[in-house]
Amino acid sequence: MEIIDYKKLRTKRLDSEGAKDVIGRLLIGKENGASNFVMRLFELAPGGYTPRHSHEWEHEVFIHSGEGEIFKEAEWVPVSEGNAVFIPSQEEHQFKNTGTEPFLFVCVIPSGVPEL
Amino acid sequence: MEIIDYKKLRTKRLDSEGAKDVIGRLLIGKENGASNFVMRLFELAPGGYTPRHSHEWEHEVFIHSGEGEIFKEAEWVPVSEGNAVFIPSQEEHQFKNTGTEPFLFVCVIPSGVPEL
Repeated sequence: MEIIDYKKLRTKRLDSEGAKDVIGRLLIGKENGASNFVMRLFELAPGGYTPRHSHEWEHEVFIHSGEGEIFKEAEWVPVSEGNAVFIPSQEEHQFKNTGTEPFLFVCVIPSGVPEL
Repeated sequence: MEIIDYKKLRTKRLDSEGAKDVIGRLLIGKENGASNFVMRLFELAPGGYTPRHSHEWEHEVFIHSGEGEIFKEAEWVPVSEGNAVFIPSQEEHQFKNTGTEPFLFVCVIPSGVPEL
């Protein structure tokens, strides 16, 4: 068993096109012995956003703190602490922080694709 | 895409032997189209605990709020908001709420075993 404090993990700035002020942390992955799925934490500064994209793998998301919006079928929908989001394979999605505090969400993906 | 407010989900009281004041909610499972892994949320009232057990499937856990302890290799270890926990297959584990507020954690498991 491993207990991980996310604040002590290495951070990776998402510098892909279309991203702004996003930090990612790999919480649990194959180095921990996890062979089926991978847990990451993303942190968006106020005004920050992830790239709008789609891909083969699904997301299971849980909003840990803050307030934001998610791009869902051509419109922006509010999400906040305590919301879960299922994003199926190939569905376009984008998160943005619309609040004044950091917007943090856990995002789980299947193994076998880039972990972060 | 589905956006789920956990507060609106049906709750299931864990009444298995060795559990006290635990409520589970199925956040994302096969009914949502999730075919690889399943996301649940557990809520322990102050003084509550999950059963001490082990099983074939692993857990990937993220502590959403509150303060508790996890039974890890014969001792109790504190965990709190922002901690992630990887529990490998067959490793004995148990959570308890040691605080004065509800203790909530997200727990992801592979598909193909009981979802909640």
